[in-house]
Amino acid sequence: MAKNAPQKSAITPTRADDYAEWYQQVVRAADLAETSPVRGCMVIKPWGYAIWENIQRVLDGMFKATGHKNAYFPLFIPKSFLEKEAEHVEGFAKECAVVTHHRLIAGKDGGLIPDPTAELEEPLIVRPTSETIIGAAFAQWVQSYRDLPLLINQWANVVRWELRTRLFLRTTEFLWQEGHTAHATDDEAREETQKMLEVYASFAENFMAMPVLRGPKTVGERFPGAVDTFSIEAMMQDRKALQAGTSHFLGQNFSKASGIRFLDAEGQQKLAWTTSWGVSTRLVGALIMSHSDDDGLVLPPRLAPAHVVIWPVFRGEDTKPAILEAIDRIARALRGERFGDRAIEVETDLRDLGGGDKQWEWIKKGVPLRIEVGPRDVASGSAMVARRDRGARDKESIAFGELAQRVPALLEEIQVSLLSRARAHRDEHTHAIDDRESFDRFFTPADPSKPEIHGGFALSHWCGSAACETAIKDALKVTIRCIPVAGMEGIRAADRLMEPGVCFVCGGPSEQRVVFSKSY
Amino acid sequence: MAKNAPQKSAITPTRADDYAEWYQQVVRAADLAETSPVRGCMVIKPWGYAIWENIQRVLDGMFKATGHKNAYFPLFIPKSFLEKEAEHVEGFAKECAVVTHHRLIAGKDGGLIPDPTAELEEPLIVRPTSETIIGAAFAQWVQSYRDLPLLINQWANVVRWELRTRLFLRTTEFLWQEGHTAHATDDEAREETQKMLEVYASFAENFMAMPVLRGPKTVGERFPGAVDTFSIEAMMQDRKALQAGTSHFLGQNFSKASGIRFLDAEGQQKLAWTTSWGVSTRLVGALIMSHSDDDGLVLPPRLAPAHVVIWPVFRGEDTKPAILEAIDRIARALRGERFGDRAIEVETDLRDLGGGDKQWEWIKKGVPLRIEVGPRDVASGSAMVARRDRGARDKESIAFGELAQRVPALLEEIQVSLLSRARAHRDEHTHAIDDRESFDRFFTPADPSKPEIHGGFALSHWCGSAACETAIKDALKVTIRCIPVAGMEGIRAADRLMEPGVCFVCGGPSEQRVVFSKSY
Repeated sequence: MAKNAPQKSAITPTRADDYAEWYQQVVRAADLAETSPVRGCMVIKPWGYAIWENIQRVLDGMFKATGHKNAYFPLFIPKSFLEKEAEHVEGFAKECAVVTHHRLIAGKDGGLIPDPTAELEEPLIVRPTSETIIGAAFAQWVQSYRDLPLLINQWANVVRWELRTRLFLRTTEFLWQEGHTAHATDDEAREETQKMLEVYASFAENFMAMPVLRGPKTVGERFPGAVDTFSIEAMMQDRKALQAGTSHFLGQNFSKASGIRFLDAEGQQKLAWTTSWGVSTRLVGALIMSHSDDDGLVLPPRLAPAHVVIWPVFRGEDTKPAILEAIDRIARALRGERFGDRAIEVETDLRDLGGGDKQWEWIKKGVPLRIEVGPRDVASGSAMVARRDRGARDKESIAFGELAQRVPALLEEIQVSLLSRARAHRDEHTHAIDDRESFDRFFTPADPSKPEIHGGFALSHWCGSAACETAIKDALKVTIRCIPVAGMEGIRAADRLMEPGVCFVCGGPSEQRVVFSKSY
Repeated sequence: MAKNAPQKSAITPTRADDYAEWYQQVVRAADLAETSPVRGCMVIKPWGYAIWENIQRVLDGMFKATGHKNAYFPLFIPKSFLEKEAEHVEGFAKECAVVTHHRLIAGKDGGLIPDPTAELEEPLIVRPTSETIIGAAFAQWVQSYRDLPLLINQWANVVRWELRTRLFLRTTEFLWQEGHTAHATDDEAREETQKMLEVYASFAENFMAMPVLRGPKTVGERFPGAVDTFSIEAMMQDRKALQAGTSHFLGQNFSKASGIRFLDAEGQQKLAWTTSWGVSTRLVGALIMSHSDDDGLVLPPRLAPAHVVIWPVFRGEDTKPAILEAIDRIARALRGERFGDRAIEVETDLRDLGGGDKQWEWIKKGVPLRIEVGPRDVASGSAMVARRDRGARDKESIAFGELAQRVPALLEEIQVSLLSRARAHRDEHTHAIDDRESFDRFFTPADPSKPEIHGGFALSHWCGSAACETAIKDALKVTIRCIPVAGMEGIRAADRLMEPGVCFVCGGPSEQRVVFSKSY
């Protein structure tokens, strides 16, 4: 697009020119977040945090509606707790923040140093995830089958030391929720794992307008210590996959490590079956990369901090009172209407700035509807309304009296159009691929000077061996995102998913295709 | 009371017998929180966390209504940041969690040790409060007077290493909110400091049903680095004061340390004026100690996780269907009604447990209204309703058809009665005291074997010197809680507050009385 029509975009560079840099510039232009003086940690600015608050509000309601209760567990995990579950150690005890002292004192140069006399007997780890510390609590809470199921969620910050970070997508500290549940039976825990995967998928599609595939991960991609890991996977605009949420069936591994035992109805002592599941501020990154364009952020209305922004266009002092009065009336009328689960949120921008500056600022911030009111609008009793999912100049005149009814309908149209646009994008870049040569070509950029946007989802046969999986990963940085069981609505290639066939790497037999992709 | 009427209470010991232990037992019986394997850190259980969520929801609404926006800043603070503000170092750099390594590796004995090759160049401190890290962000965000005021709030966890901890009241990790604002003028920042103090006071009185005094702290009790600290102070049932919230006018101290500068309208570079203010999960401890009795927790209806609990009393299998149907109808009718800012929350307890067990469990959990429905109730078309602020046997029969109207009114009555009861308690134990001997007697337990409940608020003259303040603190562990300016409604002794007089310690002149008390 940028090549054929060299018109200016609000974000430089465009997606086509430099996708990674475009992402950073969208985050910056929308004032969502910034890097901090603390290596790998971000500052989430008000507009970005408001998106996270909306994500939290909706998910929290869905968790409570499925019987979960919130609680809060310590930030710190004793080192010995991480050592309890062998695989878990491997996965999480490596790159983490280790607290070794509990006091600072004045050093020789006048600065502060950790007090050598205040070294902890046992180092504490800032939680990278809370299975082990929550397991210790569950071991006390669960005595009898009557205490089960135990359905707990925690909203918290976690820390995983990362070398290369990107705002929202990968940061050393991030915000998330982690569900932790314990059950009396294997079946019930497996059912919970699936239920929460569906909650995530439904949230992604209905609120984020982001279509997702869902299914189990391969053994190599499982959560450390899990028996089975399921994920939702979305395709970003550069055609890479983003794992947007995971739900783990932990079997009895963590019950054993933490001692979560209960007396069943027959008085027999049993180990509980546990699950855990989480999504994080990474979802904000997924939202940005699903919908935003070369003019900046595009927000799905159901998660937008503001649904509508209104500003005046004055032509001389004497036009002001009537325009301001009209804006006030429109804002009040709209705030009285609802969209989805909340009242319509209206920003009125009365700053002493030009209309063009305001327009581009709000476009870059992604507000779904922009309304301008000038003297001619007041005279005609109507306002100019622009949708963020259309071009900046595409405006519709709507009578004041109809706005309260039309705005919720327009928001719904935008929500629907973003989802269908994202589905079409995914469809376009999902292909059944059956031979290694086509596979390699699919995942090789056509233009080496523009390496970022290429590939997509390859539905290919795989024999199930770690060797073939690793060969592809090493050769192309392409991984099996999941063994999809659902969420391929509207994808043409999907009907070829369940065909049997032969592994495109080794020629071994395969029962179904799996999804290969590069990923975040 | 326990002496005259040796009737059994649900909590052992009673307040009179052992106040500190009573508190722990109330927390335990209501299933609010527990200690964790991590020294000084607590686990907040679902019932306790739900109270905190209600506190958050209400305060968050009040902050947003006063123009503040939420954001999120890093958990870690570089050591050098804490060193920037001299007084702040003194106050906060001492007992804190110090992160020195970013990796664990296998040690000789098979366990994990901090990797010696992964030592941080500069240690990181887990935030004890965020003035310095937020100051660094503000320094970038503020360029011109047009960027001011900057009104930000953060909901977060913080860590201050504590030797002696008590659930909710003093824990090494706690949850809180911290407001941070920057202003163009001294006056505006002072106004903000007062405004947020009033928000806290209004929240304490109208939602927690907890009357508070408010006013500046003495120099010795200020927040490290603040020019002025204001607090709200409440009297607990053992007559000690609890500082429930603070609002700090920071002058230009932190602007100077962090470099928060702006160009004013005349193009002159100026330092901004900043404030900070916070309340924490300590409020849950304050709520417990304000209202609970010897039968356990008493929740102010506006913050109760559930307003009403309903359970059936069966007399034989054949009575079940009609009773369950009545309960379902009542629950639905009540959930359709509102109390304060939310729908009425109803728990239905259908567990296979005796009515007596259920009754005492819900009494101990503090639910404002309990409703029992048995066969006779169904026959008469009415239910037995009991209020948590009255004796367990004090029940009122209310017709089914009137419940939807009566329940919100009863909740309001309970809310009002808890506040007036707390006010009366404070009034009873607040005295103007003008001589050292009476002062000493006031703060000495009458019965040395029951040292906990004694004293109260002494309104006494003070010359303003640190020497007199320290003498009293050292002798009696009594401190000046604040120099009260408001919040003494209903206290008889309050009319003597603004009298001039002489310091009861040294005889020096005093313009007004101040509030002395033992405290948490």
